[in-house]
Amino acid sequence: MSSPRRADAVRNRALALEAATALLSEPGATLTVEAIAARSGLGAGTVVRAFGGKDALIDAAVAALLAPVVARAGELAASKAPGEALRAFLAELMDFQAAHHGLSAGLDGLDLPGTTARRADLEAAVGDLIARAQRDGELRDDLPVGALTVLIGRTAFAVARDGSPELSAAYLTVLFAGLSPVHGR
Amino acid sequence: MSSPRRADAVRNRALALEAATALLSEPGATLTVEAIAARSGLGAGTVVRAFGGKDALIDAAVAALLAPVVARAGELAASKAPGEALRAFLAELMDFQAAHHGLSAGLDGLDLPGTTARRADLEAAVGDLIARAQRDGELRDDLPVGALTVLIGRTAFAVARDGSPELSAAYLTVLFAGLSPVHGR
Repeated sequence: MSSPRRADAVRNRALALEAATALLSEPGATLTVEAIAARSGLGAGTVVRAFGGKDALIDAAVAALLAPVVARAGELAASKAPGEALRAFLAELMDFQAAHHGLSAGLDGLDLPGTTARRADLEAAVGDLIARAQRDGELRDDLPVGALTVLIGRTAFAVARDGSPELSAAYLTVLFAGLSPVHGR
Repeated sequence: MSSPRRADAVRNRALALEAATALLSEPGATLTVEAIAARSGLGAGTVVRAFGGKDALIDAAVAALLAPVVARAGELAASKAPGEALRAFLAELMDFQAAHHGLSAGLDGLDLPGTTARRADLEAAVGDLIARAQRDGELRDDLPVGALTVLIGRTAFAVARDGSPELSAAYLTVLFAGLSPVHGR
């Protein structure tokens, strides 16, 4: 590959990725090759070739969006008490989910190994925050970390997906009251 | 319409409705006219004619399935203390949702006035149980009934949809601990 063509390929990847990321934050937008092409000003063929395929493009966009969220869980774990870190992370995660409608629809059935890996990282990060908060006595320990992780992941997403900030705040209030350590057993 | 033809029509409606109801409880089954025809042994045209249209058939099936669930909320409200009635109803509702996979997919975009009305009844019934429990001091009253109703509806469904009985039980434990009256404010 000659140098100008390589530069084109790099530029096309960047444009397509940027367009895909923008679409993920738009209500009602579907992450199709056509939509990405229209948004980026590239041809559909160019978009697909830039990533070697449609699924690979979508995978790169979603995984790139999730990576800083996963990193944020680590930052909070390092800088706050475990219970506070968990609550702050959930609040941020729900804001992120509410702002990225495209993450909740249209991805089923696609081959997205990068996205699957980042989602697993995210679940592991939440599980880690829960386990640390349980160890520190800030969270009830009569329910297993695994069950709480699945429970919190599903319910937070269901509330955030198309919910209001007020609803998310009410959810976190009820959730953390329900997660308080159980006394007098 | 002659009497034998009328009897046929009644029979066809019953067969199609029974087939649709059975499909709603099968994992992965989609409520299409073809699937209902295959299950009922009727022709696709007969199925559609029996209800005047595909949406009307699906609407009748889903609404018929939801009606006893709505009635059950009233029974529990009449026979138990408000907090206990709410908890018992949510447990039964989640079992019902887990057993009827077809209710959670494939209904978007259809014109289902009967189903919409039954869902509104269901939400009103949950709201009523919550309001009664708040009035009796069994539930925290620092969050509005409307927010709690939406919150509980979404999270219970997200957990029940493809969850295990253990996960549903853990959810109800955390939820009701979180809904306990708030003291010392």
